[in-house]
Amino acid sequence: MATILKAKEAAERIYDDVRSRAQALKATGIQPQLDVILVEGDPASAYYAQAKRKIADRLGIAYRLHELPADATEASLLQLIAECNAVPAVHGILLELPLPAHLSARRIERAIAPAKDVDGVSPANKLAVVTGEPGLYPATPQACIALVKHYGYALEGADVTLIGRGQTVGLPLFHLLQREQATVTVCHSRTPDIAKHLARAAFAFVAVGRPDTVTPSMIHPGLVLADAGINELADGSIAGDVAAGAGELAAAYSPVPGGVGTLTTAIVFRNLMEAIDWQQKEATVE
Amino acid sequence: MATILKAKEAAERIYDDVRSRAQALKATGIQPQLDVILVEGDPASAYYAQAKRKIADRLGIAYRLHELPADATEASLLQLIAECNAVPAVHGILLELPLPAHLSARRIERAIAPAKDVDGVSPANKLAVVTGEPGLYPATPQACIALVKHYGYALEGADVTLIGRGQTVGLPLFHLLQREQATVTVCHSRTPDIAKHLARAAFAFVAVGRPDTVTPSMIHPGLVLADAGINELADGSIAGDVAAGAGELAAAYSPVPGGVGTLTTAIVFRNLMEAIDWQQKEATVE
Repeated sequence: MATILKAKEAAERIYDDVRSRAQALKATGIQPQLDVILVEGDPASAYYAQAKRKIADRLGIAYRLHELPADATEASLLQLIAECNAVPAVHGILLELPLPAHLSARRIERAIAPAKDVDGVSPANKLAVVTGEPGLYPATPQACIALVKHYGYALEGADVTLIGRGQTVGLPLFHLLQREQATVTVCHSRTPDIAKHLARAAFAFVAVGRPDTVTPSMIHPGLVLADAGINELADGSIAGDVAAGAGELAAAYSPVPGGVGTLTTAIVFRNLMEAIDWQQKEATVE
Repeated sequence: MATILKAKEAAERIYDDVRSRAQALKATGIQPQLDVILVEGDPASAYYAQAKRKIADRLGIAYRLHELPADATEASLLQLIAECNAVPAVHGILLELPLPAHLSARRIERAIAPAKDVDGVSPANKLAVVTGEPGLYPATPQACIALVKHYGYALEGADVTLIGRGQTVGLPLFHLLQREQATVTVCHSRTPDIAKHLARAAFAFVAVGRPDTVTPSMIHPGLVLADAGINELADGSIAGDVAAGAGELAAAYSPVPGGVGTLTTAIVFRNLMEAIDWQQKEATVE
């Protein structure tokens, strides 16, 4: 029987911690606040933005949703971000992705102040992940690692196959896995035989964004499998990158939904607390 | 008989190109100039700085060496870099490493203007390597790839073992190998069995900075081996990271000296030409 790496318990532990940190801040007169920017057009993004509101309410965190129309201009987004950067009451800025095709996520992410960048998308935080310097690291890669560690698995010295090398999840996850002292093989669309690499791996992290990237025949019974994919299928249901029935053949696997994504949301709020610490340090220095 | 991946021919091809680009620039009134910053104390660095002067002379490139005493302060280095950044006649700035222990290379590298940063050490260029955006990429990782490609080896889809994950060579090389579509496994000091990974690799890049990191028993006859190590032994001689006698057991190997290091110097000068292009574009925009 494969262990199912459910995120609920690990997420609740983080929320407990965030709630007490938020209370302590409020006692000093600081009301933690998360601002989410949503450009209309992607139903899943709207759903995630709404889910964050519910959690913020539970945690005593102020939440402000900025909804922009699907034809919003880059200039209007940049201006909104500049305002959020400038207002001290805004502690965290999160841009829901994907954006409509006419907008460049890269240029817009660049505008977010590093100390408010709760999903680690600004250049300074992207570089911090690479160099290992302090910063706000992207939430999904952190969630991948936190989930397997929550279940007691040790990554140090382990043979890890990472499938996917995108800027959002794969590459930062590669760097965070270095910090865990894992030996990582990065597979991608041009890797001729991904199954060969999985066959010798103790852990697999899958972050491609395509259903059925990992199929049952690629699994061995000792494998611990974390699935960072969130794909909307034609029937409206949500699936990961691992095919149905494949995870059960492994030693352990993370479900979708209820796995990496669930923990990712929790880590966004933990990052918000880290962001407030950072902003307070900056304020002290000035 | 193993093929010896000598860099001379590939380097000369680059020098021919740099020489004509320098001549074309001089015809438009621009005298290309490289400024090298050397803090006294490391004999090898002094040697490399001198070697670059000779090449600059051959190529018609102006060369200015800034020698600072071994007890130079960080402030004096930062001031020197600020001057080089500001002077339009300086097209490239190269800081010879290692620095004495009291100086932070990271903080000093951060001060180099990205468009003059011919060894790709500034934050903007470090991030460009990760994201694949245009920039000046570090010379040694470029040299590793250029050397094996010069000998006709194809990295696309290939199984590559990279030993070493330092900020200077290993990590940027990992990212450049993604651009080549290789499947890369990154081994390091905490990898329990590097030999196991080498056994299935078509290519190995070694960038640890420790002699005898790869020994004869770790080599298989199909391996193509590029050695980015430059280590000074107790007797004053130079050795790579691959043990004596190991390379000969592979399909191909790069000698030290005469391999990656030789091509690295050529790529610094190619980067200088790229830097001038960048500065001219910046000047046009302003």
